[in-house]
Amino acid sequence: MQPKKNIMHLPVYQPGKPMEEVKRELGLSEVIKLASNENPFGCSPKAKEAIVSMVDQVSIYPDGGAVELTQAVAAHFDVEPNQIIFGAGSDEVILMLARAFFVPGDETIAASPTFPQYKHNAEIEGATFIEVPVDEQGAHDLDAMLAKVNEKTKIVWICNPNNPTGTMLTEAQIKSFMEKVPSHVLVVLDEAYAEYNVTDQYPDGFKLMKQYKNVILLRTFSKIFGMASLRIGYGIGHPDVIRSINQVREPFNTTSFAQKAALAALADTAFIDSCREANAKGIRQLTAKFDELGLPYFEAHGNFIMVDVKRSGAVVFQALLRKGIIIRHDAGWGYPTKIRVTVGSEEQNNKFLRALEEVLSEVAVS
Amino acid sequence: MQPKKNIMHLPVYQPGKPMEEVKRELGLSEVIKLASNENPFGCSPKAKEAIVSMVDQVSIYPDGGAVELTQAVAAHFDVEPNQIIFGAGSDEVILMLARAFFVPGDETIAASPTFPQYKHNAEIEGATFIEVPVDEQGAHDLDAMLAKVNEKTKIVWICNPNNPTGTMLTEAQIKSFMEKVPSHVLVVLDEAYAEYNVTDQYPDGFKLMKQYKNVILLRTFSKIFGMASLRIGYGIGHPDVIRSINQVREPFNTTSFAQKAALAALADTAFIDSCREANAKGIRQLTAKFDELGLPYFEAHGNFIMVDVKRSGAVVFQALLRKGIIIRHDAGWGYPTKIRVTVGSEEQNNKFLRALEEVLSEVAVS
Repeated sequence: MQPKKNIMHLPVYQPGKPMEEVKRELGLSEVIKLASNENPFGCSPKAKEAIVSMVDQVSIYPDGGAVELTQAVAAHFDVEPNQIIFGAGSDEVILMLARAFFVPGDETIAASPTFPQYKHNAEIEGATFIEVPVDEQGAHDLDAMLAKVNEKTKIVWICNPNNPTGTMLTEAQIKSFMEKVPSHVLVVLDEAYAEYNVTDQYPDGFKLMKQYKNVILLRTFSKIFGMASLRIGYGIGHPDVIRSINQVREPFNTTSFAQKAALAALADTAFIDSCREANAKGIRQLTAKFDELGLPYFEAHGNFIMVDVKRSGAVVFQALLRKGIIIRHDAGWGYPTKIRVTVGSEEQNNKFLRALEEVLSEVAVS
Repeated sequence: MQPKKNIMHLPVYQPGKPMEEVKRELGLSEVIKLASNENPFGCSPKAKEAIVSMVDQVSIYPDGGAVELTQAVAAHFDVEPNQIIFGAGSDEVILMLARAFFVPGDETIAASPTFPQYKHNAEIEGATFIEVPVDEQGAHDLDAMLAKVNEKTKIVWICNPNNPTGTMLTEAQIKSFMEKVPSHVLVVLDEAYAEYNVTDQYPDGFKLMKQYKNVILLRTFSKIFGMASLRIGYGIGHPDVIRSINQVREPFNTTSFAQKAALAALADTAFIDSCREANAKGIRQLTAKFDELGLPYFEAHGNFIMVDVKRSGAVVFQALLRKGIIIRHDAGWGYPTKIRVTVGSEEQNNKFLRALEEVLSEVAVS
């Protein structure tokens, strides 16, 4: 009963307290969660209808190939069905990439801080995970990442916009990177927050993916589509890469409910447009107040902002929690005075800002 | 972009045709699927209510630790919460076991034929998969399996009742096996069909698991609970084993819908009792006719029967399909004249038996 040596140091998930328990303990009637970059506007009503329509088919296995959804996504992005693979969230696509490609001794490169699942999966597979600090603006340092590439490099992970910093790499930056990176290196462009983009600088990942066989895009229904509970995301890449990932895919890895809801949500472009617009407005609302309070923040291109509260992020987290606001602070980021806050509805943002202002007056500058 | 060498020979999933397309192509108005061991009576109405009650929380991430469901299952079976781990179907628990324990060079043992995911996951991890043929009654040959155990053996998989043969190992057989198997070998008792048992011989896996640290039980909500679409199953074992599996678990590996529906379904014991009873009746209905037709079958302890149609199983599969009945035949089983049929409702069983009788008169004995 000897587990793999390379997993024995991995942290075990500590379940968080259920929201109701937090409320009871703190004597709060309302808790606002701006911690997980969920969509404050929920999901498309069409997705909800799709869920309810499936309720008499609970006992039937999902379509293992997600055929209908694959065809819809392929048509939506003008790619072939064999260029798409679905996972239980893009998390599972990351897992499958790691499981299909890594062997012990491989190297893999990502920014620090970035989405933690790249590292988690690389370590499980025994690959060496190389972390390249983001620059002072919180952005990927692509030149420094490129300098770490060698013949052992299997995958480079680029989270764009980057979670948790929120920063964006432009099309010009990614193109320049792709021109220099060797073709044996698979470049994963994790575009979980792509649909929030309101600039004209965001890379056209599909163009890049068509030009470079070694590019794979990750997308998700968990963020702007507001379907985090259902766990569905996807990868889009060259058919050979998708084929390798399919070789390690479990036969029924996404639920019927997720597939049907995603199909309905994909078609509801009006919902996505309204969420994008509200998010951009929310970023302006939050950053205007941060400016007023003299709090620096990274340029935000997702549905969250990383802001420097100039005080212990851990202390500010606890103080906000006591006022019923949950945000994110992680000692592992290497930013002791920064917090990450999800862009909520206008009302949620206002409540957060009021609570933050109170907390700033209570907690000493560090 | 070099995938792992040990996955390159693995088959790529070929998506099946959607049911509606099958109907159109064959000009059928009704198709009865008795191919996937789904519950013909659906799921508990309480599970459906739970699903509908969640429809305004689609955008919220699941409880990663499935705390409420874990507590309920722990109370149900009188074990501790740290002895339970949930997966997206027991499929994902198998994946996590393989990913947490196997290193290249390990050996792992299972019956042949048995549930294919043991082999799939062992191969992905580079473990050597040793297949021990079932005996003439379709049952695990535990002595032969034990004879293959050595110091390299990491996991023995015992599917009980065995899919696809349907046979059951008794408590006495499993106990005798456990007394002889070395303690470094993890014994996985896959009890996906346990709740269909109507004998007094079925092993008390919980007693075994408490006695032997190296036993883990797999259970699922996909079978008698009728929730295959939602992908939720679980493992129950020693806290140390569960801890290792948790180290490779993705943070949000089951959906909120699955968790809530499972919680409701677990409490509805009347539904499970009625399904168990109807299934036992269905087995009597089907086997009475098989006896009449002179078709031998393995003793069936799940919700499916493996029957020898004395003709090419592949030909019988196609002939039944043309009559709107989907059953299972797999060349990989090594039984060219056997098919596996799920126990349906009384009406579905009657339709299957009528179609089978017609097919037997049309297809020559091989």
